[in-house]
Amino acid sequence: MAENRGAIRGLPGRATHLALALGIAALLVLTIEPIYARGRIWIEGILWCCLAVFAWEWIAHLTSAPTVRRKLRYLASPGGLIDTASALAVPSALSFGVSPKSAWLFGAVWLLKLAPEMSGLRQLRRVIVREAGPLASVLAIFLLVLLVASMLVYLAERDEQPDVFGSVPAALWWAVTTLTTTGYGDVVPHTPFGRLIASAVMICGVGIFGLWTGILATGFAAEQRRQNFVKTWEYVRRVPFFSKLGPAAITDVTQMLRRLDLPPRVTIIRKGTAGDCMYFIASGGVDVELPDKRVALGEGDFFGEMALLGANIRNANVVTRQLSTLLVLDLVEFRLLMARHPELAEAIDSEATRRRHENATVTTT
Amino acid sequence: MAENRGAIRGLPGRATHLALALGIAALLVLTIEPIYARGRIWIEGILWCCLAVFAWEWIAHLTSAPTVRRKLRYLASPGGLIDTASALAVPSALSFGVSPKSAWLFGAVWLLKLAPEMSGLRQLRRVIVREAGPLASVLAIFLLVLLVASMLVYLAERDEQPDVFGSVPAALWWAVTTLTTTGYGDVVPHTPFGRLIASAVMICGVGIFGLWTGILATGFAAEQRRQNFVKTWEYVRRVPFFSKLGPAAITDVTQMLRRLDLPPRVTIIRKGTAGDCMYFIASGGVDVELPDKRVALGEGDFFGEMALLGANIRNANVVTRQLSTLLVLDLVEFRLLMARHPELAEAIDSEATRRRHENATVTTT
Amino acid sequence: MAENRGAIRGLPGRATHLALALGIAALLVLTIEPIYARGRIWIEGILWCCLAVFAWEWIAHLTSAPTVRRKLRYLASPGGLIDTASALAVPSALSFGVSPKSAWLFGAVWLLKLAPEMSGLRQLRRVIVREAGPLASVLAIFLLVLLVASMLVYLAERDEQPDVFGSVPAALWWAVTTLTTTGYGDVVPHTPFGRLIASAVMICGVGIFGLWTGILATGFAAEQRRQNFVKTWEYVRRVPFFSKLGPAAITDVTQMLRRLDLPPRVTIIRKGTAGDCMYFIASGGVDVELPDKRVALGEGDFFGEMALLGANIRNANVVTRQLSTLLVLDLVEFRLLMARHPELAEAIDSEATRRRHENATVTTT
Amino acid sequence: MAENRGAIRGLPGRATHLALALGIAALLVLTIEPIYARGRIWIEGILWCCLAVFAWEWIAHLTSAPTVRRKLRYLASPGGLIDTASALAVPSALSFGVSPKSAWLFGAVWLLKLAPEMSGLRQLRRVIVREAGPLASVLAIFLLVLLVASMLVYLAERDEQPDVFGSVPAALWWAVTTLTTTGYGDVVPHTPFGRLIASAVMICGVGIFGLWTGILATGFAAEQRRQNFVKTWEYVRRVPFFSKLGPAAITDVTQMLRRLDLPPRVTIIRKGTAGDCMYFIASGGVDVELPDKRVALGEGDFFGEMALLGANIRNANVVTRQLSTLLVLDLVEFRLLMARHPELAEAIDSEATRRRHENATVTTT
Repeated sequence: MAENRGAIRGLPGRATHLALALGIAALLVLTIEPIYARGRIWIEGILWCCLAVFAWEWIAHLTSAPTVRRKLRYLASPGGLIDTASALAVPSALSFGVSPKSAWLFGAVWLLKLAPEMSGLRQLRRVIVREAGPLASVLAIFLLVLLVASMLVYLAERDEQPDVFGSVPAALWWAVTTLTTTGYGDVVPHTPFGRLIASAVMICGVGIFGLWTGILATGFAAEQRRQNFVKTWEYVRRVPFFSKLGPAAITDVTQMLRRLDLPPRVTIIRKGTAGDCMYFIASGGVDVELPDKRVALGEGDFFGEMALLGANIRNANVVTRQLSTLLVLDLVEFRLLMARHPELAEAIDSEATRRRHENATVTTT
Repeated sequence: MAENRGAIRGLPGRATHLALALGIAALLVLTIEPIYARGRIWIEGILWCCLAVFAWEWIAHLTSAPTVRRKLRYLASPGGLIDTASALAVPSALSFGVSPKSAWLFGAVWLLKLAPEMSGLRQLRRVIVREAGPLASVLAIFLLVLLVASMLVYLAERDEQPDVFGSVPAALWWAVTTLTTTGYGDVVPHTPFGRLIASAVMICGVGIFGLWTGILATGFAAEQRRQNFVKTWEYVRRVPFFSKLGPAAITDVTQMLRRLDLPPRVTIIRKGTAGDCMYFIASGGVDVELPDKRVALGEGDFFGEMALLGANIRNANVVTRQLSTLLVLDLVEFRLLMARHPELAEAIDSEATRRRHENATVTTT
Repeated sequence: MAENRGAIRGLPGRATHLALALGIAALLVLTIEPIYARGRIWIEGILWCCLAVFAWEWIAHLTSAPTVRRKLRYLASPGGLIDTASALAVPSALSFGVSPKSAWLFGAVWLLKLAPEMSGLRQLRRVIVREAGPLASVLAIFLLVLLVASMLVYLAERDEQPDVFGSVPAALWWAVTTLTTTGYGDVVPHTPFGRLIASAVMICGVGIFGLWTGILATGFAAEQRRQNFVKTWEYVRRVPFFSKLGPAAITDVTQMLRRLDLPPRVTIIRKGTAGDCMYFIASGGVDVELPDKRVALGEGDFFGEMALLGANIRNANVVTRQLSTLLVLDLVEFRLLMARHPELAEAIDSEATRRRHENATVTTT
Repeated sequence: MAENRGAIRGLPGRATHLALALGIAALLVLTIEPIYARGRIWIEGILWCCLAVFAWEWIAHLTSAPTVRRKLRYLASPGGLIDTASALAVPSALSFGVSPKSAWLFGAVWLLKLAPEMSGLRQLRRVIVREAGPLASVLAIFLLVLLVASMLVYLAERDEQPDVFGSVPAALWWAVTTLTTTGYGDVVPHTPFGRLIASAVMICGVGIFGLWTGILATGFAAEQRRQNFVKTWEYVRRVPFFSKLGPAAITDVTQMLRRLDLPPRVTIIRKGTAGDCMYFIASGGVDVELPDKRVALGEGDFFGEMALLGANIRNANVVTRQLSTLLVLDLVEFRLLMARHPELAEAIDSEATRRRHENATVTTT
């Protein structure tokens, strides 16, 4: 709920991104003995450069903070902790006499710098917080099945295979690989009773992870829908056409529109192709390329409405003029809207008629 | 959105399909040494024939294009590129001195000719485009877990099993097989810490792929519903019975009808069986086989409505007269429609009553 | 749609069920060499008895059919074909000189006798018919990925592991086990390129089966809902209380009620426990056990409504008097119904008040 | 439906929880030979202590029951049976001369004491009861595929691999591991026909478990929603603000609110962050920390409404004063509510205006 603004300020820039990519690649290569033996200087050179970037970033953050309290607050924030670890982990390890090859592996903490940027992780955290109850329930069932299964299989198999089922903790390893249906096959029950338990565990495993999957997938979808609504709502407010609608219609429209962010000079509509959606311009602008002239449309305009009103072959190219955000309304959603809010359909219809009359040849797509 | 009509024109015909099936089968057999040794002439003969078909198709396309600009446009289109590759890949390989057996394997590009025809692939592409954001989020989480897990397991296992966990890239192979819960079992952690990481990876794997699955499945279902609506809408417009309804009812009806394409002489309704749906004829026609005569119904008519109005045993056979498209309305959907749009139920009811009166014995099913 | 009544008539009775269970168990035991060696007479005895039951059933069906045309129709029906195969498969095999142990294995066709009885199989068939389009799309993608992956891995691994990746058909086996994420581990790529392909295949596998799963699960849920509606609708018509409602309310009620079939002498409500649902009696009857007397409720009555109207501790035991079908209305659904159809809530409320006044001490639960 | 109050009374307290955790840990360690050899006295000491706690709990329950009938009822209840088994299983085993190490493993029944406490298990039981029909259908299909597959693979592989496919029950083990896509790899078909069957089984497996997963996940989600509705409904009744609304609006509100239980001194809203939800206080209280003073809000009040009415930067910290239950209303849900029930939006709006006027500086967040 209360988003941490400090984390956003600490986002790595372009240089940090490059250093991250190079650093992680160098870390991967570092561990391949033959390549490391030959190109040691190069690999370590890259790693030192990356470390320098992260250290510089950390120091810059620290010095840019005006007061000591701000400095401490930065160091205590999640972003600050990651920056500190990124800058100091490898040098500390080296100074404690760890061999260079092992010491550099502490560079894995660099990956944590990506965490605040990944919107997926943020969403996942929100989903886990929201669905904490059911997820914990399923986790508890998972652990219970795990424990019971490993005890039973230990009883069944300990005499047959004392090396792999010699203790309950050893049997737990088998239980995890089986319950997740991974099935490495390094530990497999041989007795009929052990196999019966294993069969039950496999079937439970599918069920348990089905529950888990269902909860996560449903929660993630809901979170997506929620975020989409909040963002689209901002854009819908900028389109004057929608401002005439009542709150019920606006809410419905917001749920049905899909945002589309396009760079300049992208062809949105190609003449002669079949169309099944119309577009509202939330920001930016487009050019409608008619045979004899170009018509420029800007923020708040809409185009492509003919596809929803009967003529489903586009009659002009439409190209973005600049970085634009469009709101797309599909045929299906349009029909549903039309049925629920006839005033919206009328408004689009009258606007389309007006355009056709005003400019007999310049029908926009 | 803007569908490529060139790709549709370039769809392979019956001959190409046959050549494709034969060619791929020959390619599979080609690699089985004993069969190839004996039947080399036959296999290569088939392959040369297939190649000839594809080359001919490619040349026909090129020569049929009227202008040089059109020729170049065809060559640059996805369909044209596939055609070019299909025609030239194997001959080029042969001319560069690759052994015949290896050269023919380039015939695998022939499979690409199927891509434009597979509606599933097109839908999948649209789903991936629409759900690009969440899918990318999950992919990022997947890669992060992969990297972290392989570094950790490398640290845990590199001394124990230097041959399979000797470097982070080698550990990545283990991480992929584990995170997808495939679990080949060729690379398995032995140390307690490695096994702990492996357990966490397996559980993460199920979660991550649950998210992935959920997003894809939800998106695919929505896309299916959208396409179905657009297609059914076309047919609903052809049934005069629905034209009396308002837009809200038409939208609801369109969402509830199911299309059914049937070849001639198929028995749709069998006398004496239990029925739970009624049919509207969108195109084609059917024969109602009454004891004493046959009644022909055509485009726009409906039948089987008695099943929804109380009598649920069919009282006549109904057989398609020609290739027909029917719109099926289920009992459940009918009840829902009836509740929301009483005027529709009344219309069906009055039509049924009219029929019964008009023709006391000729009640249609 | 047109359900085969012949198949229903051909349902096996109690004797056939027993014969099936014994026969299949005997078939399983037959293949265990040490048990078969000792108990051969017993096992074969049971099998001959089972065969006799099935042969008798087949002959009874044939002789009970009055005309030759009916006999032939039975033989050509799916049920008839299964009966014929069940009766004749093993004797034919024995008479052709197959060894007894192998011949009896043809008894596996007996399992088919269960097929018409399994409602799940029928539903699954309907789902597959309805969702044929998307399922075929996904199957096509599956096959395409399979072919492409096996060709690529064949190229990558044929020199490294000629024994298991020696031909494309051999590589197909690997591709199937990997794409389904089964991962036996008997065939595993060793080259870096092969492992890259394998990783891609695993990830595709999860995606493809996610789609498949999503389609099947969604379709199955819809089919369940549909069947439930049709069955519950029949019962709702028998409860006079609902007949006062308009069609919109009845449809809503039908969707919200849950059927419950209970044998006699089951305690539905226990005094002093917390309650969150009320019950309508669609068929059968219940006894309300009050401290001083018993009140009998029959078809069309309802009870337990106090739980929905504020008092959530049950104040009497309620026990079924005979085999009864109850319709259960949950608190959540009741609230939703109340909001949409206030007349229903009023009716329940007034009936509850009437009961309380009429019989101050005999409040039903 | 009829929840067992006896089971709730029998919930283990803090001491039992500690004994459970220690006991299970000791059981796990007990089976590790080297640790057991050294620390035998300690481990068995802990186990005897745990046993003493469970025995004491059992005896306390028995003696606290006033009448013999109550004592017997406790012994026959599920909770009582678990308590009895927990207290007597290990001593009985020891007295029957079982070796201590094996006897203590009967302590696994202690885990059952957790069962009544796990809300997930209770929900799962309800889901399984509700979805019994479809789950049984899928189980039947699962068993049918299992039997047919093992018979077919036995026929295909019995000559090739008589040791692992030597009988149908042996082949069943392979079928289970394959159908659940676990794929240990200890038993793998080698013949082409066997591999074809295996491929079919794997694909079926994914489909069957997709159905299973879909049913469980859908049912679990519905059960969650139902329980949430029932609990939130209780709280909504305590907020006077909602009492002005009609039943339709209350039902909608209840479905849209999310409960949040917070301990004291938690910062709910942080000044300066972006907000997208408002809060109703169902129980407990919060402090709004304004620059010059603190405003205390109690049961029935709401705060944070500005975020939904346009100003999306929070203007004060809000901290819980005591253990509080809040009802959270999201921006998305608020928009939907506003569209459906304008009276609710007006009420919130007028209250917000009143607050601003009444206390120009003390605007709550």
